[in-house]
Amino acid sequence: MPKVVDHERRREELADAALTIIARHGMRGVTTRAVAVEAGWSTGVLSHYFGNLNDLLLAALRRAAEVQGRIFRERRSQAPDDVVERLRLLVESTLPLDERRVALTRIFAVYYAEVSVNPQAREDVADYQDNFRRMVERIMVAGQADGSIPPGRDPAVMAMDLVAVADGLALHGVIDPRIAERLAEEERPGERIVREVLGLDTPEASSAGPETLAKSTS
Amino acid sequence: MPKVVDHERRREELADAALTIIARHGMRGVTTRAVAVEAGWSTGVLSHYFGNLNDLLLAALRRAAEVQGRIFRERRSQAPDDVVERLRLLVESTLPLDERRVALTRIFAVYYAEVSVNPQAREDVADYQDNFRRMVERIMVAGQADGSIPPGRDPAVMAMDLVAVADGLALHGVIDPRIAERLAEEERPGERIVREVLGLDTPEASSAGPETLAKSTS
Repeated sequence: MPKVVDHERRREELADAALTIIARHGMRGVTTRAVAVEAGWSTGVLSHYFGNLNDLLLAALRRAAEVQGRIFRERRSQAPDDVVERLRLLVESTLPLDERRVALTRIFAVYYAEVSVNPQAREDVADYQDNFRRMVERIMVAGQADGSIPPGRDPAVMAMDLVAVADGLALHGVIDPRIAERLAEEERPGERIVREVLGLDTPEASSAGPETLAKSTS
Repeated sequence: MPKVVDHERRREELADAALTIIARHGMRGVTTRAVAVEAGWSTGVLSHYFGNLNDLLLAALRRAAEVQGRIFRERRSQAPDDVVERLRLLVESTLPLDERRVALTRIFAVYYAEVSVNPQAREDVADYQDNFRRMVERIMVAGQADGSIPPGRDPAVMAMDLVAVADGLALHGVIDPRIAERLAEEERPGERIVREVLGLDTPEASSAGPETLAKSTS
């Protein structure tokens, strides 16, 4: 009897090995040999599944987007009646607050650098971000309809800004440990930026310290 | 008489050539030969100034940070009495609204991908961003002191968020032409995000369309 090979599963294993290497050593670490060793397969097996390194990189990018997409979908259905909380959960799933999310941010940073030279990677990254933005926008539209968030601003613009600040903070947290520490010290960094973008009172503002109170104009 | 060689100028030329190549072809385009050709010098001259490719990459990064730093300093002194306008000018100098700023965003994206594998690049990028953040924070502190922006929020946190949303939008604009177009269509995209972060009314909200007005809860 011929061996049953789960080709899809093997492609995933190889893509995951590429992601592990990217998170650890950046794009320069990704060689056919390094990925094969990491996955525990020969370079022959690797070349059977991926014609060239670029195909492997794209498969790895899709795998990263798929993993994060699954997390988005799980989180999206939590706290169905609380718009701010739903957005907070989505945003915090992208902030570098644990090892998984640090690795994910590093991986996306590597692909962001690729976009100007790799049209397919650019399109895939753009689609991934667009999906995140649309998910956020739909929640905002629902929140404006039921009155739980203020009307008056374009949800598409607010979604664009929220995804941008989340991604900017994620990248800056990976670049600068002081930013990562500041985010980790906050109980709910996602809530702060969600409220900021939506134009709601921010938690820190409502518990202002003495220096700030002394300056209060009201 | 020996030729007078302006070594500093030549180092700058070579660093600029590296930046041109990074903006055009990403990090994978950067080879000793490509940079020498772009600069119009031999690879021998290049290796005289930079011991290895990594030294050249760091010099190029410093050059990019220096060029943008000069723009920050020029802009910072404009509109001295208007905090929102000062912040808007700073933020918009980093958004990909023209070719120079698109190239700069691409260049920084390449270095962001480097930070996990290159400690010196990480430190340089972190310092660059920290300088931007501090500049923004000082303006916010002054604005809270003179009452032109609301008290109650920590300027360091607002500066962190403003720099993150500006950088996030810049990167997303380079990745997704729809985002770049949306930013280009706005008259003052920087003003919108500055007001959002500071908790001031946003220009779009104050000119809300009919659909939004119909939904208004007040």
